[in-house]
Amino acid sequence: MKAEYINPFVDSTLNVLSTMAFTDSSPGAPSLKKDNLTKGAVTGLIGMAGSEINGNMILSFEKATILSIVSKMVMEEFSEINDDVTDAVGELTNMISGGAKKLLSEHGLSFDMATPIMIVGQNVELKQLSDHPVISIDFTTDSGKFWVEANLASA
Amino acid sequence: MKAEYINPFVDSTLNVLSTMAFTDSSPGAPSLKKDNLTKGAVTGLIGMAGSEINGNMILSFEKATILSIVSKMVMEEFSEINDDVTDAVGELTNMISGGAKKLLSEHGLSFDMATPIMIVGQNVELKQLSDHPVISIDFTTDSGKFWVEANLASA
Repeated sequence: MKAEYINPFVDSTLNVLSTMAFTDSSPGAPSLKKDNLTKGAVTGLIGMAGSEINGNMILSFEKATILSIVSKMVMEEFSEINDDVTDAVGELTNMISGGAKKLLSEHGLSFDMATPIMIVGQNVELKQLSDHPVISIDFTTDSGKFWVEANLASA
Repeated sequence: MKAEYINPFVDSTLNVLSTMAFTDSSPGAPSLKKDNLTKGAVTGLIGMAGSEINGNMILSFEKATILSIVSKMVMEEFSEINDDVTDAVGELTNMISGGAKKLLSEHGLSFDMATPIMIVGQNVELKQLSDHPVISIDFTTDSGKFWVEANLASA
């Protein structure tokens, strides 16, 4: 995955979290993902597919982080990861990948998005094909961390 | 998901397993998936995305089933789910969804595929958005069962 492909995911994440969940977040430096485990308590993933490029985006939240974000999004307190919370993770996954899609189209990269799948549980073994390196970025918020991972390569 | 969209996944599964892994399999009747858990010991999933239609395909294997299939595919014995086996699950996921894509294009439905993600572990909680019903089909082979799940709806 080319380094310049990752910034649109960072920019879209900051924008979606700020406008939809009134949450400021600061990104760390991008790094190559070295293990195959889900990092947070709940994870959204979505396929991106075009005739020239394809891959996946993964968004994984610590429990406290996602409960705070969803509580702000829907203006109701959540204390457990229930169906409303996993649906919100799916919507965030849609919105962030949709924002990145718009930004990447300015680089001439076009793709459509599949529908999100949400995985509940930390340290779930989640692998991609051995020749598909995944870039990971950690984000810090007032209520905890979350991670954005993406791989996008020539189809 | 319309019922006629599921047959191409069944036909492609029978074809890929027979030609790539010399494995005959018999499909059960399609049913609506009622829980959110992975059924087999290793699961491949792939996003399908077009301008008019999108969704996911999920392929989940009992351990004995996938070990037998991969052993036949690469003509080498496997006794554990290692990286070679998960990569083979990814390739099968690619080939089966690719075959279904070709058949569905004859119905005027076009989409591209993302890249596969493999999940290791049974009973992993794997959810889709609440308004995206998933059709599940169980297949029986000489060495055990596997499942194909698909949802495909207007984008």
